[in-house]
This record gives sequence, structure tokens and C-alpha cells, in this order.
Amino acid sequence: MDLKLLTTLRAQNPIVLNIANFVTVADVANGLNALGASPIMSAEVQEADAMVQIAGTVCINLGTLTELQINQMRVVGKLANQAGKPVVLDPVAVGAIPYRYRVARDLLASLHVDVIRGNAGEIAALAGLDWQAKGIDAGAGHGDLVHIAQTCAQRFDCCVILSGPTDVITDGTRIAQVHNGTPLFQQHVGSGDLLSSLVAAFLATGNDNFEAAQTACLVLAASGELVAQQLTASRPASFAVALIDKLSLVTPAEIETMMKIE
Amino acid sequence: MDLKLLTTLRAQNPIVLNIANFVTVADVANGLNALGASPIMSAEVQEADAMVQIAGTVCINLGTLTELQINQMRVVGKLANQAGKPVVLDPVAVGAIPYRYRVARDLLASLHVDVIRGNAGEIAALAGLDWQAKGIDAGAGHGDLVHIAQTCAQRFDCCVILSGPTDVITDGTRIAQVHNGTPLFQQHVGSGDLLSSLVAAFLATGNDNFEAAQTACLVLAASGELVAQQLTASRPASFAVALIDKLSLVTPAEIETMMKIE
Amino acid sequence: MDLKLLTTLRAQNPIVLNIANFVTVADVANGLNALGASPIMSAEVQEADAMVQIAGTVCINLGTLTELQINQMRVVGKLANQAGKPVVLDPVAVGAIPYRYRVARDLLASLHVDVIRGNAGEIAALAGLDWQAKGIDAGAGHGDLVHIAQTCAQRFDCCVILSGPTDVITDGTRIAQVHNGTPLFQQHVGSGDLLSSLVAAFLATGNDNFEAAQTACLVLAASGELVAQQLTASRPASFAVALIDKLSLVTPAEIETMMKIE
Repeated sequence: MDLKLLTTLRAQNPIVLNIANFVTVADVANGLNALGASPIMSAEVQEADAMVQIAGTVCINLGTLTELQINQMRVVGKLANQAGKPVVLDPVAVGAIPYRYRVARDLLASLHVDVIRGNAGEIAALAGLDWQAKGIDAGAGHGDLVHIAQTCAQRFDCCVILSGPTDVITDGTRIAQVHNGTPLFQQHVGSGDLLSSLVAAFLATGNDNFEAAQTACLVLAASGELVAQQLTASRPASFAVALIDKLSLVTPAEIETMMKIE
Repeated sequence: MDLKLLTTLRAQNPIVLNIANFVTVADVANGLNALGASPIMSAEVQEADAMVQIAGTVCINLGTLTELQINQMRVVGKLANQAGKPVVLDPVAVGAIPYRYRVARDLLASLHVDVIRGNAGEIAALAGLDWQAKGIDAGAGHGDLVHIAQTCAQRFDCCVILSGPTDVITDGTRIAQVHNGTPLFQQHVGSGDLLSSLVAAFLATGNDNFEAAQTACLVLAASGELVAQQLTASRPASFAVALIDKLSLVTPAEIETMMKIE
Repeated sequence: MDLKLLTTLRAQNPIVLNIANFVTVADVANGLNALGASPIMSAEVQEADAMVQIAGTVCINLGTLTELQINQMRVVGKLANQAGKPVVLDPVAVGAIPYRYRVARDLLASLHVDVIRGNAGEIAALAGLDWQAKGIDAGAGHGDLVHIAQTCAQRFDCCVILSGPTDVITDGTRIAQVHNGTPLFQQHVGSGDLLSSLVAAFLATGNDNFEAAQTACLVLAASGELVAQQLTASRPASFAVALIDKLSLVTPAEIETMMKIE
């Protein structure tokens, strides 16, 4: 984990290309912008080439996929691979919907993905391990989260973030855990989508995906924790507004004093 | 009306599948989540079967329909009928746009819909009665709102919610009216869409659609009224944030002391 | 510039039809509603005719275009031209993505557009002048913004708004500049999209597009400036909420005391 990457990111203002979930796309765009990145969204495969050229990194989100969008994901992903631009995959609901699982497996077979970010139900499904996913939620399961994340990372030769109350980050060998956060993340739809796109922004800052992924998790989790301390009750929409504000204000020094990472 | 359904809903955390309006989808997802339901959105007909299987209820919103989406609505609706899962229809702008009216009529001919939720202009159009709808707004008309709602309910053998300053709920025979609310609902785009999806969430809690529909109307209207009392001026965006917060905090006891229902 | 147009707009409550960017569509709808207009969004070409009939004006946004949507834009634009309804074009990212530039040029060749609203990078690209656009952002360039806007306006025989820290408005001959505003507009994704749709709302109030365009720029810039004065730090999401609130509250008298326009 390296909080200097936050300073680098803000100086660099990388363009993050998002093949987005239309439910959460506004939050993702504003979160990226607040953090210090430059979001761009695209829905048309004919502009894929130019979009990948101007982008620093790409985030592919399966949240509201269509056949048309899946084709675009494949083309954008391959172009990003060819250009050496990092790719993040957010496999929304692959643990609950077999069609989405097949789409994710097909994408992972035809592309190299640098980071997969999902909840326990999604990562367990991709790892081929047992879990009870529930819709877009993690669901309930018993199992060693570190083992699940590691199995998934080894299977697809990439970094994996299994996010939740504790975020587990692994490249298959190295393991980090971020214990910061707040239950309000689960109460706001799209916290995971936002994290996936913030990870993409951090991937633009350096060569070590494992470091970048951890730092993204820490910055978001710590920002949320700081914001939640100011709220007198469980207010998920006020939290979402304050969280995006905080992403533009949070400093490495502020995070250092409170981080719980192992 | 039965406020215990709110407690049941929160204990049950039902999955509500939304064929959504992309304008208001984030508010709908966050509102469902805040209330205590689990939202999922889908745009691809190939995942219809699995989506309906995991869902407790379905909400179909015509707000930004396309030919592709209409096909998906038909397939999802039929699968929901076969599986005995309740279906809510939100016929956005059918009073103003003849194409949408035909789409709604076709859907209502090929599916059984459990609850239709619309404004006066939309419900009057489906009832075959005169009204001056205006775009997405109710518009101005003269007519007995109870008669309009009842005619629509009898025509399609379902519950109807004609929402507005007073919400009229009817199954064609029984009638309820919710007088709670605030003019701020009209100032925030998507209040109706949110109500439709909250109704879908309440349908998962029991067998009496008329009771569930009334309770959904009351919970939203009372939450909005409570929130509006805290605002010193007409602030539609602050209202929207506070409303979603309130959906996660509001209790049956709080609503009981203020409800105006007949 | 004529602030009485704000009063006219609120009395008239014009319907603005938006072919929208799905990233920013909720803000645009709520901003139009708060200002006093009535937003409607459409994604299906088969309802184009009825949509244009009920609309006062049309705003076409290229932000998340698809081939299907481009066809719809062409049909809606032509119908609006035939019916004498004003059309606004928001050429998102045409300075950065050659495909979007070709789409914008094709639309401008087959339609008459009344107002083009873009940032410096977008307007320079359409004017055929040099500029370094960056994704959806204006990017960095050297050049006389007034000359760029004027060249674009003369090329397409329309009004042009080149928006940024200073908004330049021109019909090719007359020039106005609005110096109000706040850097927070650049920190919130979709400020430009909102302006484009507010311009469309103001076009419904009279016959002089140049006057209407200026007034829209001033109302938004002044509202943002007033809101920013209340914020103790750079909070882009709180700003967005307060801005939409302010659009429903701001008065001509309030703006008159602070306007910086030449």
C-alpha cells in the first residue's frame, strides 16, 4: 500500500474509460472526478479504438449488461490489452445469475484482466467455490475469504479484490486486508461499482497492480469511515453525498493516522 | 393498510427486479435498498429466467422504453406470471404519447399485472376516460379520481394506484385514500417511479395486494411529509436525499401518529 | 440578456424533450424541473413524432451515443425543424473522439441546430480550429475563445455557447460573456449537460435565441456562484444538490445584484 499514489493520481488526472452500469454511473463518474481522475463513458463499439487510445485505464462493469454491450466489452478489452492499458472487471451478480457467470468466463477467456473486484458471492463463483450469493448482494456463505480470493486470482492470473466489511486484496501470492470502512457502504447501491472504477484510476499511477488495488481500497474505505463518523444516524443518501465530497478532500496524512491494514 | 408489513418487509429483504427507467433508476435502487428491500436491474432478455427466479416481485417501468426493452418486459412479465410472482406496471406518459399507450395495452393484454401505478393522466388514459395529460406530468383534468381509478382497476382486473396530492388505491371494489404527502414529491423527478418499485417490494410481504399497495403509498407519503417539515424552503434535491435517508429510518410507530388515510 | 425570461419560463412550464446522456440524465431532469420546465426523455424512435409534438424544444446530447440513438437524434431533429421547435446540440467529446466529430458533423449537415453548447475543446473542433481537448474535459489550448465561438457560429449559422470559467455566447455577430460562476462546476460531472438543457428550456420563452442563451448561462452561473459562497470547502456533491435546490429558488432580483456580464 502506498498513499503517495493518491498524490500521483491527482497530479496525473488519468482518463478512466468505463463500460458502465447505468444504475450507478452518475456516482461513479462523480466519484472518479472528485478523487482527481477524469471519467469517460462509452456505449458505442465504433468509438472503441479512439476511447482506448485516450484512456489511461478501463473499467468493465457487468451490472446492466446487454448483448450489444458485451460485444463492446470484448472489443474494448482486447484493444486495451494490445495497448498495454490496465483492465478492471466488475462481475456484478455472477454468483446469482448463470448467464452473467458465462459472460464473465467468456470475457476472462478472451481478455487479460488486471484486477477483478467483486463481493464474496461473485468472487466465490469465479473461483469455482461454494457460496450463497443473493442478487447483487454478497449473500451468506461460510468460507475463508482469503482462500476464495486467492483461488480466483490464481485461476485468472490477476489481482483480485474481494470487498466487504473487510477488503481482501491478493495477486495470488501476496495478501493484504483493509479493515477500515462503515456498514453504510452496504446501504448505498453502487459502493462496489465505485470501488472498481477507483481501482482503475489507481492502476494508471504505477506498475504494481497489487499496490494500486490496496491503495484504492484503503482510500475509499477510510473516506467512508471518516464520513460515517459525522452522521448521527444511518442515512445512506447523505452518506453518498458526503462520500463523494470527501474523495475530493481526503489527504494521505489523514488516512495514515487511522488506517487498519494488514 | 397494515404497517406491520413494513416490519415484515425489512425482515424478509425481498429482491425486487426492475425493468427500469434510466432517468430515475439510481433513486429507485437506493430507495428500495434504504427501505429494506434488495433491488436488481436487468436489461438483457437472455437472463430473464434466472432474474425472475431469484426475484420476489417485478416492477416494469415504461419511462424510457425501447423496442428491445418492450420485448424484455413481455418475457419477464410472462415468466413472473408463470412463477406466481407479483408484477407492478408503471405506465409513464401513456396519457401523452399514443405509442406508449399501445405498448401498455399490449402488455396488459399479454400479461396479468397485479398493480398499475400512475398519475391521473396515465390512469385516465388506461381507463379510457378524458383527461389532459402533460408529458410525464399528471396535467390538468376534471373528473372524479376515485371513479377513474376504479374504472381502470375493473378494466384490467387488478389493483390501481392513482397517485398525486392524494393517492387513490383501489382493487375495483375496495377504495382507500392516502392524504399524507408534500408538494415536493411533484418537484422531484421520479417520485412516481420510486413509489411503483416500493409497491413491488411490499407485494412480496403478503397475499393482499390492496393492503400492500396502500401501505406502500402511506410509508412513502408519510416519509416525505416528515422530511418536508424539516426543510425551510422548497429544496427538491435536498428533499430527495433526505427522503431516501428517511426510508431507512422511518418506523411504523412514527407513521401511525400522523397518518391520514380513509 | 433578459431576466424576465426566467419569469416567463416559470409561468409557461415548457416541455423539454431530451435525447440524453445516461450519465447525467437524472441531474438534467431534476435541474429542468427545479428551474420550472417539464423534462421528458425518450429512447425510442417510434415515439419521435408524438414526443416532438408535445415538446416546446429539444436537446440532443452526444454524451453516450449509440448507432440506434444517432438515428433517433436525426429523426427527432428533423421533426423539430419541420415543426419549428428549437434544437440544442451538446457535442460531448467531439474534440477528443473522431467518431463523435463525424456524428456531430453529419447531424449538423442534415438538421438546423439553433444553439450548440460545448466546452472550448468541443467548440474548437467544430470550428475547425486547433485545440488540445482531453476526454470530456475542455483540455488546454491557446486561442481566442471569442474567435473560436464566432467561427463555429458562422460555420453552422446558429448560436454558440462556449462554456467554461467565462461563458462566451455568440450568434456569429453579437457577443456576450458571462463571468459569473464557480470552479465547482468543473468538479461536478454534467454541469455542461445541465446548461445545454436549461438553454433548451429558455429557447421556449421567446424568439431571440441569443438573448435566451445568454440568460440561461447567467441563471445557471449565478445560481452556482451563490451556492458556492455557502460551502466551506470544495464539496462537489453537496454543490450539485444545493445547485438544483437553488434553481427552484433563485429570483431575477437576486441575480441582478451580482451579475457580471458584458
